[in-house]
Amino acid sequence: MPSALVLIANGTEEMEFVIIYDTLVRAGVSCTSAFVSEGAADNAHPPPSSVAKCSRGVKIIADVDLRDLEDARAYDVIIVPGGAKGAETLSKSVQVQELLRDYHSKEKVVAMICAGSLAALAARLPKAKITSHPSVKAELERTFEYSEESVVKSGNLITSLPPLNLSRGPGTAFLLALTLVEVLCGKEKREEVYGPMVFPQGYYTA
Amino acid sequence: MPSALVLIANGTEEMEFVIIYDTLVRAGVSCTSAFVSEGAADNAHPPPSSVAKCSRGVKIIADVDLRDLEDARAYDVIIVPGGAKGAETLSKSVQVQELLRDYHSKEKVVAMICAGSLAALAARLPKAKITSHPSVKAELERTFEYSEESVVKSGNLITSLPPLNLSRGPGTAFLLALTLVEVLCGKEKREEVYGPMVFPQGYYTA
Repeated sequence: MPSALVLIANGTEEMEFVIIYDTLVRAGVSCTSAFVSEGAADNAHPPPSSVAKCSRGVKIIADVDLRDLEDARAYDVIIVPGGAKGAETLSKSVQVQELLRDYHSKEKVVAMICAGSLAALAARLPKAKITSHPSVKAELERTFEYSEESVVKSGNLITSLPPLNLSRGPGTAFLLALTLVEVLCGKEKREEVYGPMVFPQGYYTA
Repeated sequence: MPSALVLIANGTEEMEFVIIYDTLVRAGVSCTSAFVSEGAADNAHPPPSSVAKCSRGVKIIADVDLRDLEDARAYDVIIVPGGAKGAETLSKSVQVQELLRDYHSKEKVVAMICAGSLAALAARLPKAKITSHPSVKAELERTFEYSEESVVKSGNLITSLPPLNLSRGPGTAFLLALTLVEVLCGKEKREEVYGPMVFPQGYYTA
């Protein structure tokens, strides 16, 4: 069973987090949500509560605090959701930056959505084709090859796991989630998960 | 500012809950999530924690426990999300059934999604055009006029608030959420909220 590490922080966009997590669980992926607190690398901070107050006020209890997760490098995919404030916290976390470089260098799947794409910049990932929420396009296009596509796969989806999977916002979160299901579990599983979600006809097809 | 009461229980479909809540907050609607525990009308039950363990394992802390909400009848819209187990708890709650009849009789907006449509049956709402997740179609079509449309508005959307707004599953939650924004806040607000969510071109347009 593939496994996914889904990061979350105060200010994370709750739709992006939940759509990815839920869709992957539907596909049989073992998901762990890890809370990243502001200044996560600093042990002087108060003990973690693992409750994320998300961008529109939904309060989500993460499965673990990232600082307590012993084998954060052992998952098959790492996911960085958006939400301006949450993406800032995730991008600035030294632990997250190290994890992203580790996953990327091992050619594991790295997925970012919306302002979460800023983490690619903060982690100094190599130049790649990238997309993001339009609000952070200017910061990213100086370093990366910027695309306006809904979902960008930088790497060869057919013959190997693509190192980067990105999408633009909550409106593209389903497309990213289904793309991740296909990458991790295959095209048949994507179709199996797709049906019961009852999309309007023609939406989010492969 | 319009206000919305969004119900949640253990087993609620987290994408449906979060997409509706978040999109309404983006439109300036004041949202309150109210936790309904199994056997909510029974005071002998243990004190409420207001933490919903949702259908795919995401844990969401509700804003209030429905039993502690003094003026549950004062909102402009009441929303019943799906998820088989959550919809069952919400449907069976006598307090929820009474609320649904109250909102419906006052011609306030009642919205249901996925298996949440079962609550229309449990609350004995008058016969109307209805949709739901295909898995609960058989139960509903004996009593209601069943439709396969993604979003069904039973009532006149243009000249009055429609009494029932329904959609089929997580894949239609954005469409229901945007429809509710239009009903509560107008077409312009729908367009204002739609843009920054960055949907693939042509998706979920009015």
